[in-house]
Amino acid sequence: MDTIVVTDPPRAALADADRLGEYGVATVHEAAGRVGYLGPRLRPAWPGARVGGTAVTVMCWPGDNLMIHVAVEQCRPGDVLVVATNSPSTDGLFGELFATALRHRGVRGVVLGCGVRDVAELRDLGFPAWSTAVSAQGSVKATAGAVNVPIVLEGQLIRPGDVIVADDDGVACVPRDRVPAVLTAAAARVAKEEASRAAFRRGELGLDRYGLRSRLGDLGITYVSYEDHAAKEQA
Amino acid sequence: MDTIVVTDPPRAALADADRLGEYGVATVHEAAGRVGYLGPRLRPAWPGARVGGTAVTVMCWPGDNLMIHVAVEQCRPGDVLVVATNSPSTDGLFGELFATALRHRGVRGVVLGCGVRDVAELRDLGFPAWSTAVSAQGSVKATAGAVNVPIVLEGQLIRPGDVIVADDDGVACVPRDRVPAVLTAAAARVAKEEASRAAFRRGELGLDRYGLRSRLGDLGITYVSYEDHAAKEQA
Amino acid sequence: MDTIVVTDPPRAALADADRLGEYGVATVHEAAGRVGYLGPRLRPAWPGARVGGTAVTVMCWPGDNLMIHVAVEQCRPGDVLVVATNSPSTDGLFGELFATALRHRGVRGVVLGCGVRDVAELRDLGFPAWSTAVSAQGSVKATAGAVNVPIVLEGQLIRPGDVIVADDDGVACVPRDRVPAVLTAAAARVAKEEASRAAFRRGELGLDRYGLRSRLGDLGITYVSYEDHAAKEQA
Amino acid sequence: MDTIVVTDPPRAALADADRLGEYGVATVHEAAGRVGYLGPRLRPAWPGARVGGTAVTVMCWPGDNLMIHVAVEQCRPGDVLVVATNSPSTDGLFGELFATALRHRGVRGVVLGCGVRDVAELRDLGFPAWSTAVSAQGSVKATAGAVNVPIVLEGQLIRPGDVIVADDDGVACVPRDRVPAVLTAAAARVAKEEASRAAFRRGELGLDRYGLRSRLGDLGITYVSYEDHAAKEQA
Amino acid sequence: MDTIVVTDPPRAALADADRLGEYGVATVHEAAGRVGYLGPRLRPAWPGARVGGTAVTVMCWPGDNLMIHVAVEQCRPGDVLVVATNSPSTDGLFGELFATALRHRGVRGVVLGCGVRDVAELRDLGFPAWSTAVSAQGSVKATAGAVNVPIVLEGQLIRPGDVIVADDDGVACVPRDRVPAVLTAAAARVAKEEASRAAFRRGELGLDRYGLRSRLGDLGITYVSYEDHAAKEQA
Amino acid sequence: MDTIVVTDPPRAALADADRLGEYGVATVHEAAGRVGYLGPRLRPAWPGARVGGTAVTVMCWPGDNLMIHVAVEQCRPGDVLVVATNSPSTDGLFGELFATALRHRGVRGVVLGCGVRDVAELRDLGFPAWSTAVSAQGSVKATAGAVNVPIVLEGQLIRPGDVIVADDDGVACVPRDRVPAVLTAAAARVAKEEASRAAFRRGELGLDRYGLRSRLGDLGITYVSYEDHAAKEQA
Repeated sequence: MDTIVVTDPPRAALADADRLGEYGVATVHEAAGRVGYLGPRLRPAWPGARVGGTAVTVMCWPGDNLMIHVAVEQCRPGDVLVVATNSPSTDGLFGELFATALRHRGVRGVVLGCGVRDVAELRDLGFPAWSTAVSAQGSVKATAGAVNVPIVLEGQLIRPGDVIVADDDGVACVPRDRVPAVLTAAAARVAKEEASRAAFRRGELGLDRYGLRSRLGDLGITYVSYEDHAAKEQA
Repeated sequence: MDTIVVTDPPRAALADADRLGEYGVATVHEAAGRVGYLGPRLRPAWPGARVGGTAVTVMCWPGDNLMIHVAVEQCRPGDVLVVATNSPSTDGLFGELFATALRHRGVRGVVLGCGVRDVAELRDLGFPAWSTAVSAQGSVKATAGAVNVPIVLEGQLIRPGDVIVADDDGVACVPRDRVPAVLTAAAARVAKEEASRAAFRRGELGLDRYGLRSRLGDLGITYVSYEDHAAKEQA
Repeated sequence: MDTIVVTDPPRAALADADRLGEYGVATVHEAAGRVGYLGPRLRPAWPGARVGGTAVTVMCWPGDNLMIHVAVEQCRPGDVLVVATNSPSTDGLFGELFATALRHRGVRGVVLGCGVRDVAELRDLGFPAWSTAVSAQGSVKATAGAVNVPIVLEGQLIRPGDVIVADDDGVACVPRDRVPAVLTAAAARVAKEEASRAAFRRGELGLDRYGLRSRLGDLGITYVSYEDHAAKEQA
Repeated sequence: MDTIVVTDPPRAALADADRLGEYGVATVHEAAGRVGYLGPRLRPAWPGARVGGTAVTVMCWPGDNLMIHVAVEQCRPGDVLVVATNSPSTDGLFGELFATALRHRGVRGVVLGCGVRDVAELRDLGFPAWSTAVSAQGSVKATAGAVNVPIVLEGQLIRPGDVIVADDDGVACVPRDRVPAVLTAAAARVAKEEASRAAFRRGELGLDRYGLRSRLGDLGITYVSYEDHAAKEQA
Repeated sequence: MDTIVVTDPPRAALADADRLGEYGVATVHEAAGRVGYLGPRLRPAWPGARVGGTAVTVMCWPGDNLMIHVAVEQCRPGDVLVVATNSPSTDGLFGELFATALRHRGVRGVVLGCGVRDVAELRDLGFPAWSTAVSAQGSVKATAGAVNVPIVLEGQLIRPGDVIVADDDGVACVPRDRVPAVLTAAAARVAKEEASRAAFRRGELGLDRYGLRSRLGDLGITYVSYEDHAAKEQA
Repeated sequence: MDTIVVTDPPRAALADADRLGEYGVATVHEAAGRVGYLGPRLRPAWPGARVGGTAVTVMCWPGDNLMIHVAVEQCRPGDVLVVATNSPSTDGLFGELFATALRHRGVRGVVLGCGVRDVAELRDLGFPAWSTAVSAQGSVKATAGAVNVPIVLEGQLIRPGDVIVADDDGVACVPRDRVPAVLTAAAARVAKEEASRAAFRRGELGLDRYGLRSRLGDLGITYVSYEDHAAKEQA
């Protein structure tokens, strides 16, 4: 691994990250063309948080949080710290002291492909964290890694400065150069969904609203009454 | 797979489903003879919901929610939508727009052998959902499945019209023809448990209350003081 | 398996267990030298509980809670019931009736290497429970096990009378004879962390506070500006 | 659970089971309409076995193999023993002694939703076994279950007398009343596949053979040369 | 963690370890009273190995094999190296070079609660290895651990000098002071099983041989013909 | 997702891929700086295969192998097909017919982040396959994906034309532009390992060979005789 710290990578515009954060993970993932979602294993440490921010990426050795200490210094207001480990680990590389340090720097949250600890304290602080595990297991500071290099986390490539969106549905990443297009698509999607929501409240069906009904026959779907079906099964 | 939609299957009586819902999953599962529980992988999207209702069953292709759109039309007040996929998937086939449509039809909740999304919105709506994953991953509408056929979900066979009970302990299914017997057994169990609860509050022991003490010897269980045991271990 | 019940094992001092409980799992685990943590699979049934107490240990056959009934009688005020099964199982061996009985005896909580049920009721009661699963699956009372023998749970050896600490981060065990040393170390750690917390609030960096900065070079970590790094990648 | 042993259920014709066994799991599952496959968790204890036979079903309590003893007596030549547990378990409920007893009765193999043991001995005996775990963990004989009732195993409903097909790809079940239709479809599929195999050996492409090429445009798939694509990415 | 290397712990007699190795894991585990089995996650790197030996225990930091280098020097002929990591890890801490070094010292095999690599080379060498993962992921040599202290691996406590038995069914541990008793019980069990094997080959049933038939009624098990059962279900 | 097929991407030199394949996964991963390994979940369909080749990448919708049909046409001699799915799936997207078609084109193997089927036939053909599951579950051809775009598989970014190395230890990826450097490092490593192997065969210790012994004191590792340690534990 290149054991480097890349300083001052360009970030996506913070106002854009804010807007994507408001749209939320499901909408942003759809607007991006159903890519960029970090999957169901990343869960919030406490319910109800929602953030958008710019990624500072960290690659740690499993069981070793040295590079998070290095990364703190690289963080700016509006960043989200994104931590991967070089191989699978559940150790609790991040806790309340780091949150305190990051909050001072205006960091909006943390995403960890390993464990988080001090969950109660993070909830009390209101510091958002998403992780693949909750674990109190402590770490050493012995082995080099990298900061602000591209990392892969839960199936997605994340580059420093990309937008990270996270809420109760998990985490999504929008590459920096795709942010404007995703913003546009997200706005369109939200408008469309608002219209659908109103229609569904009135009792309209998705079958009709999305033009699905006419395709059912082509797909081989047939309707049969319970009585006819039961009679056939008996035969 | 038979790509059919069975219309208007008979349902268990809604008043019965209500009462089973009030008893809750653990009691209903015990009253049914310790069968019908859908296991520990089905978790609520938010804590505190409790429902009883009648099953509308859906079989979807993984990553494809076409058949949920088809199923919405088949739902009546008091139903619970139960969704299986034809092979393992965590994709978020269900979210807040579906919940809005189902609520209009009086549906009480959804059970998904895959992912759910819009968790924060579902919690705000108070729409109950149980699933094996939380995932924002979006789906297509391309491949046929079935509605209101028997499905297997998390180790249990579920037929349309069966009673579904769900709470913070997970989900249980009571076959329609067993509902009266389970209601009777549940009522008896609740009465017995209430008496046990009162006894335990007074300090009575389960060993005595359930007549277990006399069986311990036959099972080969012996009592030894710490001192005698420690002395023997040293020897 | 020795099918024995060991009576009246010596316990760690309850005042010590109280203090360790207040320190919490992460601090206690660190103070113990980063050992004794029961790992990320043990999760609380409801958020916010925090306990310290002395272990009463139980070894059950999977799907069988007979020995929990036996163990209740061995419990004293300040105890925490710790249940392992002889092979992997998710069944719900513990629920609200047991909690009622244990509360009468002053027991502070339960830790289960299997399932817990009646989660909503336990939350309403405020009875703390940690488990590797939530499951309504009921159990039999047919096969002998043991009480107050050393057990292994989630990678840790637990002896009766050891201190159990549990909170939203999971569960830790402190061997009885190590309690004084861990208390001392925990107090020192908390003092040191409080100083670090204050420093981090002021903007000091862990890199400086922990003397890490000078070691980065030896570890092969180099800093490179984004522009220089990008130029090199292009080359 | 109904603790019953159903005697002499009708079986599918053994000659049909033989033929389905020769087709193998993948072909049979496709011929059945892509249903009936028991999924990727059921693995052979040793590679290279392939069987077709008629199901004798067993429901055991976890960690308890009493009902397998009961089931042996119900087995006939050509049967495959299919064992589920009432809740998740990895215990080794089946080993070489059972295999010896079953072989005497002409049983062709065993499928276990739990553990198998004596793997080396089973391989030496040539007795086929599929299971969700390998485990030496021993079992008790204390709790009642059922034989020859419908069971659910790894997402599929299996009734006594259904055809079980198993090979290195896992296990599939064909309901007794569907056997003739599946046989017909399997024969057609094999013929079609043989023609495709020959075509592929000559270099024909699936794109052409299956008429997919013309659909690619409708699906939105476009072709771009590496150079054009790279140029666009740079822009 | 105590970062110590304990030298020259007493070992169980090698002749005893040899005999236990010949009995195999399932028999030894049963003879020990159904305890000491390390569970279904430990799998052989290649099929067909069977060993008995005395444990040299190692506790490593995840992703760090420094202590295996330390442990090699502590090994004697007849030993089996048993490696745990301080928190969950799949990294490949052991490969063919270690096997070469251990073979020189007469070590019989290795058991790893993490990953093994060079699987093809180990198979060619005939060096037995059991592990919870196969992984080529390399490790560092940076953090202290311990050698020949008691460790917990896959739910079992293992002390240096204990007997380790391993074959295709996994791994079992027999505490040094229990070896004579387990040898006696294993011999008795093997004799009993040989008699049962002969009986089963003649067609005797376990139901009769183990006296189970008479207990079925007490357990509530009833027999019903398929016809009667089907008729009742219809009703 | 961009639903594109990129044609004729440049590949690493085949002779280089051959040499990397001979070195094997563990050596290549180490030579690359301990990066590029696809982790322990990718397992060979049959033991003993070893390949090096150039990646043709495929992104499929879960349960849908349309894009593999598209990708076959893009394959050249020396390629390895690498298939990811857009969300987690175990379905068997690849079997013997595809292998037949790929073999005609000189493709050396397949790597699948989902299921493989026809395992027995692939073994008989000698066609190498690595996958995260074995599954007979069949697929549809309904939804667009991409060919020869960068994909993420099991935590690694793979670009078309990168070198793929796979053997019994799993799969590694070497980015095309890093191939020369990795070849050089691998040759050096193999030479060094050969010298170490010879030394270990003579009984030299890694502690000495790698200069570790002198560092143990600094790391806090102390040696204590069993007798002294036992005496201290008693005190």
